[in-house]
Amino acid sequence: MIIVGELINATRESVKTAIETRDHEAIRKLASDQTDAGATYIDVNAGVFTGKETDNLKWVIDNVIEATDLPICIDSPSHEVIAETLKYTRNKSDTIPMINSISLEKERFDNILPIVAGSDLKVIALCMDEKGMPHTVDERLEIADKLINKLVQNNVKLENIYVDPLVQALSTDAACGTAFLISIEKIITRYKGVHTMCGLSNISFGLPKREFMNKTFMAMAIAKGLDGAILNPLDKKMMATIIAAEALTGRDEYCMKYLTAYRAGKIA
Amino acid sequence: MIIVGELINATRESVKTAIETRDHEAIRKLASDQTDAGATYIDVNAGVFTGKETDNLKWVIDNVIEATDLPICIDSPSHEVIAETLKYTRNKSDTIPMINSISLEKERFDNILPIVAGSDLKVIALCMDEKGMPHTVDERLEIADKLINKLVQNNVKLENIYVDPLVQALSTDAACGTAFLISIEKIITRYKGVHTMCGLSNISFGLPKREFMNKTFMAMAIAKGLDGAILNPLDKKMMATIIAAEALTGRDEYCMKYLTAYRAGKIA
Repeated sequence: MIIVGELINATRESVKTAIETRDHEAIRKLASDQTDAGATYIDVNAGVFTGKETDNLKWVIDNVIEATDLPICIDSPSHEVIAETLKYTRNKSDTIPMINSISLEKERFDNILPIVAGSDLKVIALCMDEKGMPHTVDERLEIADKLINKLVQNNVKLENIYVDPLVQALSTDAACGTAFLISIEKIITRYKGVHTMCGLSNISFGLPKREFMNKTFMAMAIAKGLDGAILNPLDKKMMATIIAAEALTGRDEYCMKYLTAYRAGKIA
Repeated sequence: MIIVGELINATRESVKTAIETRDHEAIRKLASDQTDAGATYIDVNAGVFTGKETDNLKWVIDNVIEATDLPICIDSPSHEVIAETLKYTRNKSDTIPMINSISLEKERFDNILPIVAGSDLKVIALCMDEKGMPHTVDERLEIADKLINKLVQNNVKLENIYVDPLVQALSTDAACGTAFLISIEKIITRYKGVHTMCGLSNISFGLPKREFMNKTFMAMAIAKGLDGAILNPLDKKMMATIIAAEALTGRDEYCMKYLTAYRAGKIA
C-alpha cells in the first residue's frame, strides 16, 4: 500500500504556525514520525500562504529532506509553485516526487501536463472535470478514461498514475460508497498496472464515529483493489486496518508484516 | 445482511450444561439476547449428544420458539436428526427454517437433498466435496456450480440457497483470503439472486488479535457482496462493522440504521 502522509499541511493550524515561526523541529518531527509510522510519501502543502507559498514550501521541503529519506508529494493549487518547488526538490534529493494533483478541469490539466509529460514523476489524477465532482460510476470512469489516455499519450507511464475516483459524503448520497468501490475495481481491471489513490475521510462527513466508519471503508476499498491512500499515518487504528487488509488480500506472505506490527504494539 | 446467531451450540461447554440440566432460562436468554442484538436466524446445534441429539434438540427448539419469533437454523451432522427436528419445528412455528447444511460430499448431498427438494426451506450450501476443502477460486466455483445446479434442478429456489465458499486459515495459506473474496464476487455475479454465507473466524486461526482480523475481513467480504454470516451477534464490534459496511455499500438509506445503532450505543 502506498501511504501518502498528509500531516504537513498548513491548513492545520499547528503546521501553519510552525512554518511562520520557522520551527524546524516541528516539521522534521512530523516528517520522521510519519516515516516511522509507515508512510511511503510525505505530502507537503503550504497553499494557505498566498504570495509566500513557494518560499515557505521550499523551507518545508528542506526540513523534510533533512528528516527522512522518503520521497515528497508536492501538493499545491498553483502549477507555478509545483514547477518551482519540484525543480528545487530534485536538486536536493534523488528520490522521485509525486505531484498532487492533475485533474480533467481544463486549466489544471493544461498547466500540470507539461510538468509531468515525459517525466518519471508520480502523479495523482483526480476524477474531476469542468462539471465538478462525479456522482456515478460511469461519470468517474469517463473522466478516468480521458485522464489516463491523455497522460499515457504524453509519455506518462501507467504505473506512475494514481487515479483518485473521489469519495463523497455517504450522509448525503447513500450510493456514493458503492460507486467509489465499483470505480476502483473497474479502473484497475481496465488499466492493468495503474494505481489508485484516495483521501477517504469525506465518506463519513456528517456522521458520528467517523474514524470507525473511515477504517471500515478502507478495508472495503482495499478488498476492491485500492492500493494507495492519503491519510494520517499516526492514526494507529487506520494503519492497523491497512496492515490487516493487506494480509487478507494475500499481499503479506506468512502474515510477516502483520505479525511484526503486532509485536511492535501496532495492532492494538 | 442475514445474521445466523451461532451461540446455541452444545460444543460450547455452558450450552452443553444448560441442555443437560434442562436450564430453560439459559437457552431462552441466548435466543432473546441474539434476537435483540440483530440476529435473523437462531442456529441450534446439539450434535455432541450422540444418541440423545434429537431429544435434546427438540427441547432446545421448544425454548427458542418460546423466547423469540425468529426462524431457526437447524444444524446437525445427522440428516435423520435434521428431518425429525424439522418436522417438529414446522408443527410448532410458522417461520421458515434454514438447514445447516448441504455439501457436495456424496453421502451428505444424497441425504439432505430429499429434505430440501421442492421445499420453501433455506439451505446453506458448503463448497466442499469428497476431496475435502477447496483451495483455489476455481475449485470453489466448480463445487458451487454443481451444488447450485443440482439444487435448482430439484426445485430449490435460487434465493433460498446460501452458498458458503469456506474460509481457511490465512496463517497457513496467504492466498486464501483473496480466494474467498473473489469466490463471493463470482458466485453472486454468476447466479443473480443466490445468497452467500460464511463463518469467517477460521481466517484468523493461529494469528494474534483474531477479533480485529475477523471484523476487518468481514468489511472486505461485504464489499465483495457477502450477504450472510454465521457469527456471535453479541460481539458488538463485529455487529458495528457490519452495520457500517451495510451503510457503505448503499444498503442503508440516509444511514438510518447506522444512526439508530449509534444512538443505541451499538457503535462504540
